Amino acid sequence: MSWYLTPADLSDLAWGASLLGAGGGGDPYLGKSLVAGALAAATATGRVQVLDPDELDDDSLVVTTGMMGAPTALVEKLPSGNEASLALRALERHLGRPVTATMPSECGGINSMVPLLAAAQLGLPVVDADGMGRAFPELQMTTFGVRGLPGSPVAVADERGSVAVVDTGSDNRHLENLVRGLAVRMGGVASTASYAMSGADVRRTAVPRTLSTATRLGRAVREANENHVDPFTMLGETLCRTVYQQGRVVFSGKVVDVDRRTSGGFVRGSAGISAVGTTSACELVFQNENLVARVDGRTVAIVPDIVTVLHAESGEPITTERLAFGQRVRVFVISAPVQLCTPEALKVFGPRVFGIDEDYRPVVPVP
Amino acid sequence: MSWYLTPADLSDLAWGASLLGAGGGGDPYLGKSLVAGALAAATATGRVQVLDPDELDDDSLVVTTGMMGAPTALVEKLPSGNEASLALRALERHLGRPVTATMPSECGGINSMVPLLAAAQLGLPVVDADGMGRAFPELQMTTFGVRGLPGSPVAVADERGSVAVVDTGSDNRHLENLVRGLAVRMGGVASTASYAMSGADVRRTAVPRTLSTATRLGRAVREANENHVDPFTMLGETLCRTVYQQGRVVFSGKVVDVDRRTSGGFVRGSAGISAVGTTSACELVFQNENLVARVDGRTVAIVPDIVTVLHAESGEPITTERLAFGQRVRVFVISAPVQLCTPEALKVFGPRVFGIDEDYRPVVPVP
Repeated sequence: MSWYLTPADLSDLAWGASLLGAGGGGDPYLGKSLVAGALAAATATGRVQVLDPDELDDDSLVVTTGMMGAPTALVEKLPSGNEASLALRALERHLGRPVTATMPSECGGINSMVPLLAAAQLGLPVVDADGMGRAFPELQMTTFGVRGLPGSPVAVADERGSVAVVDTGSDNRHLENLVRGLAVRMGGVASTASYAMSGADVRRTAVPRTLSTATRLGRAVREANENHVDPFTMLGETLCRTVYQQGRVVFSGKVVDVDRRTSGGFVRGSAGISAVGTTSACELVFQNENLVARVDGRTVAIVPDIVTVLHAESGEPITTERLAFGQRVRVFVISAPVQLCTPEALKVFGPRVFGIDEDYRPVVPVP
Repeated sequence: MSWYLTPADLSDLAWGASLLGAGGGGDPYLGKSLVAGALAAATATGRVQVLDPDELDDDSLVVTTGMMGAPTALVEKLPSGNEASLALRALERHLGRPVTATMPSECGGINSMVPLLAAAQLGLPVVDADGMGRAFPELQMTTFGVRGLPGSPVAVADERGSVAVVDTGSDNRHLENLVRGLAVRMGGVASTASYAMSGADVRRTAVPRTLSTATRLGRAVREANENHVDPFTMLGETLCRTVYQQGRVVFSGKVVDVDRRTSGGFVRGSAGISAVGTTSACELVFQNENLVARVDGRTVAIVPDIVTVLHAESGEPITTERLAFGQRVRVFVISAPVQLCTPEALKVFGPRVFGIDEDYRPVVPVP
């Protein structure tokens, strides 16, 4: 059931992963261009093997790779492209065992791509799964952590070749705190290798098959555009056959207001979207990712459900650091996979963790 | 030429090291109490072997241990006492070689004591030398670094048992930047093991015999007080027979103004001291350590010369975080060891590095 991801798949994956990234997880263009060159340069075949979680040996060693920090910083400080490999190798040395495969920690325009980059450079396969099924802003916000796995030890690398290995035992929140501090000092963004786990743990804790799902979602949007079909309808139909079950447009309008600040290794803020021809308005609040969408003051979608802003016509995902006045957009909401909605999971990444004084209420299906 | 430091020496060492610490390097009471208990608990004899640098084998492995951060934070967040040992062991594992001895990175009320604590706990000797011959606020400001040694890899530990190992290659400034970030996130202060070097490198780069010198200076002050002799005269006479060559009082008065703020892992500010019965005033500027002393606007001593504030009668050192309105004090200046005053050294810790737009001018001897 393993498959090979080729350069032809990269655009679809970048769009689909960015859609699932809920406005975070990094810019899809940057993610795609980072991988495209490396894939051709590092592998004779220009492709990377993608393993289904069911194919992993129980005792294999899987390590997640990705970038951490404020996406706004990444736009200005391009990575060298070797950071994730450097981090993975440092973690491997620290653990004293060879890594079997790498895996994304989250879905996102960059963070679904970085493991491909590392995999191509190091000759490893990538596991078709991740620890969020979307993107979240903090390191402890994973299904791995919800199920008791430590993120420690984490290897962190920057574009100068500096590396740190951080170990806080079972305390994933303090780990986030320390690694975030390093990411800030490394220029606002850094690459990490973390959550070393066995193949059995991947099967027990990860959201499965998100790389292939993201690729299918991106392909659906592309084909809809090529065939002059409505991409939002196509997305909804494709999502029905995934762990996400449903997705739909909850608001359409023009971006009229963006309040965005980068501090402490995050981008935080809010955006206002006005409907055209009516007085209706939608407010989005974000910390790297969109956390809540309110229409005329009423919450229509809230974390961990996935709130994404898409270009009104093409369905292209617009990440929070790219939101700008005047964009015509649709706010698209995707229901979170079931493992993100348990009471234990909501304690780690439910609305109140982000300072939103509301309970999680799953997005209502189309009547 | 090795000797044994016993509990009876601790008070003298703490005072003398704090005097050389130029207002930084940590509170001597805290340093002494940290070590006193551990020395008795960890060693059967209650003493620690102190090695002269000349006794080290060329290929022995020496690692400095100490604390890093804002001394103001340390006053409020007591260490567990095991952090430095934890950091040293983590560095040892990372290097894959057993450490032969530990050594202070600087002179100070705490940072001369922490290596004794680690040595007692781990059964290692301490080397009678350090990398500053005083205290400086930043990790790269060492005679080791001036002579080309990397501070990397550094192990950093906090009181929760978290550990990070940071490696920035030969870039000691970026190392300071990253490790400071960790110290801030660890609560403003953290313990480190760094500057792993050979015995030959210790002899080539360290300021020698500062532990024994500090102990002698502390003893001189104590004996002066016991014998009702002026401690400042005794200090001056003792310094003549050391690498410091001279020390003298440059101002006496009352602390009338302290402006102190803790941010970014440092304590920064200034203090004003007014002479009693005249209009003369002395201003001190500090970043953890006192950097410059100006009397009536004229610079009388400047970094790397050692500017310390001592209690006007007892000669007790008062660190920058303990300066307070109303204290009767003397500003005592000690000339820096020669290896701190080379052009290369001044590029690393001369006045301009601290944003002071003046050249270094050695303190003038008593006429």
